[in-house]
Amino acid sequence: MTDVAYRLDQTGLLVVDPYNDFISDGGKLWPRVREVVQANGCVPHMLEILQAARSAGVRIFFAPHRRWRAGDYNETWKFWAPIQESAARAKVFADGTWGGTFRDEFTPRQGEVVALEHWCSSGFANTDLDVQLKKHGIHQLIVIGMRANTCIDSTVRYAVELGYEVTLVSDAIGSYSWDEMKATLELNAPNYARAIVSTKELVSLIQLRP
Amino acid sequence: MTDVAYRLDQTGLLVVDPYNDFISDGGKLWPRVREVVQANGCVPHMLEILQAARSAGVRIFFAPHRRWRAGDYNETWKFWAPIQESAARAKVFADGTWGGTFRDEFTPRQGEVVALEHWCSSGFANTDLDVQLKKHGIHQLIVIGMRANTCIDSTVRYAVELGYEVTLVSDAIGSYSWDEMKATLELNAPNYARAIVSTKELVSLIQLRP
Amino acid sequence: MTDVAYRLDQTGLLVVDPYNDFISDGGKLWPRVREVVQANGCVPHMLEILQAARSAGVRIFFAPHRRWRAGDYNETWKFWAPIQESAARAKVFADGTWGGTFRDEFTPRQGEVVALEHWCSSGFANTDLDVQLKKHGIHQLIVIGMRANTCIDSTVRYAVELGYEVTLVSDAIGSYSWDEMKATLELNAPNYARAIVSTKELVSLIQLRP
Amino acid sequence: MTDVAYRLDQTGLLVVDPYNDFISDGGKLWPRVREVVQANGCVPHMLEILQAARSAGVRIFFAPHRRWRAGDYNETWKFWAPIQESAARAKVFADGTWGGTFRDEFTPRQGEVVALEHWCSSGFANTDLDVQLKKHGIHQLIVIGMRANTCIDSTVRYAVELGYEVTLVSDAIGSYSWDEMKATLELNAPNYARAIVSTKELVSLIQLRP
Repeated sequence: MTDVAYRLDQTGLLVVDPYNDFISDGGKLWPRVREVVQANGCVPHMLEILQAARSAGVRIFFAPHRRWRAGDYNETWKFWAPIQESAARAKVFADGTWGGTFRDEFTPRQGEVVALEHWCSSGFANTDLDVQLKKHGIHQLIVIGMRANTCIDSTVRYAVELGYEVTLVSDAIGSYSWDEMKATLELNAPNYARAIVSTKELVSLIQLRP
Repeated sequence: MTDVAYRLDQTGLLVVDPYNDFISDGGKLWPRVREVVQANGCVPHMLEILQAARSAGVRIFFAPHRRWRAGDYNETWKFWAPIQESAARAKVFADGTWGGTFRDEFTPRQGEVVALEHWCSSGFANTDLDVQLKKHGIHQLIVIGMRANTCIDSTVRYAVELGYEVTLVSDAIGSYSWDEMKATLELNAPNYARAIVSTKELVSLIQLRP
Repeated sequence: MTDVAYRLDQTGLLVVDPYNDFISDGGKLWPRVREVVQANGCVPHMLEILQAARSAGVRIFFAPHRRWRAGDYNETWKFWAPIQESAARAKVFADGTWGGTFRDEFTPRQGEVVALEHWCSSGFANTDLDVQLKKHGIHQLIVIGMRANTCIDSTVRYAVELGYEVTLVSDAIGSYSWDEMKATLELNAPNYARAIVSTKELVSLIQLRP
Repeated sequence: MTDVAYRLDQTGLLVVDPYNDFISDGGKLWPRVREVVQANGCVPHMLEILQAARSAGVRIFFAPHRRWRAGDYNETWKFWAPIQESAARAKVFADGTWGGTFRDEFTPRQGEVVALEHWCSSGFANTDLDVQLKKHGIHQLIVIGMRANTCIDSTVRYAVELGYEVTLVSDAIGSYSWDEMKATLELNAPNYARAIVSTKELVSLIQLRP
């Protein structure tokens, strides 16, 4: 699907969870994502897209997962989901640590929007991401980052429910397994994303400015 | 996972999209779901759970997809998702038709809650489902119905983001393919559902009343 | 405040609750709103704005309150608000009755959007109004209708929280008392509405346009 | 209205914006709220309720307004509301300053929940307050803090739209004028709050417990 035309003043790039714990060697989840992420060039692709979007004047948004802090999650919660229990147990993205810091190349610049932290998987749920997109006049959203069948899938689903037009970049997302990648890219996202493109295609599309 | 204890006065059963177009022979989507739905006994399981929940005093909620009406979707919309384009093209669940009516055995009874119709996949998005659950004091949600990797997956994800504890019943949901079932039951829902059980297990769990 | 410039393709007119029960002689709430509504010309102003908006190509949206149906509200709800208890007691906007029908001149035309019914006061809460506005590319919202300090105030507050720019038309809203009008127009809405204008000013603003 | 019975394990106390800028001598907004706040004993009442709630085992939640940071609000926003423009101009609740710190007696304790910061007036909008309340099983919400006709009114309206039962404490809220107090306490909140009580009544109600 490449019939999407981007109005760049209405287009946002959403970078989901570019934490060291996820996408840097030495991160807590790196051993789990390494196989996919190294094979599909996820990190260099994410960076290439970030740079192309900045050059094209596409506004940049970041959707960060809750940085773990003492007392988080189920210590006082009565109801929880397995993914939250895992996050609490592993203390992923711990606040104030290297793992809970964005990988260096993904440090937000002035004028770029870092949404409030999300507790589960959707970058929209219980955060200000939707209002930030609206305040900036965004209708078309390019989604990249981690992890395919959890945060990416949930964020794409929410974006569509909320009325955004979504482009997912197939080789700028990663996951724990190829089965998860396939579930997202072949079974689920084709229902929601208006376009699923490669990094190469995307960069070409947003360079062709009107 | 069978360590969930249900407080029945805080438990709701959510039946998603039990339309004739989906789960009855002759429905528009029946040819696509038949293989899975007949093999796993989805419809009789849904019915068995509905009856068990009613007997146990679990309140029943229905999450219906938008019934197609003339002018819906992309005629005036500027942004749309593929799943909405398909729905518009196929006129699924057309309002006022047999296909857009709940299968007979799933007719809501007095005191059962039919949420507002959803435009995409989540029974929560842009509807009153969350407030209806809150008004009835529900915290634990049992999810059954159609279709595994679209409405069921989205509804489960939203439920968890909103703070509900979700139980998914593996043989009371259906889909277009076994790959979709596997994506939902083995890859995605285990992150979100507090329990994934069979109909037999569920019926046993909600009969064991405190 | 008249420094708002409207981009008409991004502007929507939102008509809140133009039910006979509210704004027609003989309606259940008419005796309560008559004094204000007759004095400020609310109904003819609403109509004048509707016609001007249609002529200017501004898309029209309607936000209808829940039409009362048997079993609604607190019969099974565990928690309720006084305004909902009143609505249940008085059976206002009863479904299928004249009182629960839009006043004749406000019948929606083809291509105009009627949002899902709201249970309380905000036209956005638990409805599809936000997604409908997004799907039509709306960022600027002109709000008219009933009743100043309940549905209008709540809808304006929600619109702003969600990121819309709001214009409120001071003589195209009504209420039970001048105190309520003053609370809305002088104390509350000035915090949220980007502009509060008269019908005359509004009509002029949306006519002066390419 | 004093017919509300509290189930203390389902009851939360919500303290809205107890910033030095609002409720401490020397704060940026103190000159504007002083008259009302000193006359109705708002701050000592807020403290009395906080202590009573802690003693009764009622869980405590805080809803903090966005702490101003460089670049906030309309520098990149295309749409804004007057209240946000004022906040940006006055740099209220500036992050890292005394004014943007909770008044000393209102420092959250371990196990108490500080919701994400809100950009406008509702403690719920674009934050995690709703999910935090759900995760802790809360259905009844006692609301205190600042400022009557903006954050308090919006938070109460949102709470009710979302399905919570609200108690507002009339002498534990403050505002810029008696007109604003009257608008909230006599005209608006009676539609939404299940109970409006004095501090004395509230403390008595949550002490009388099985």
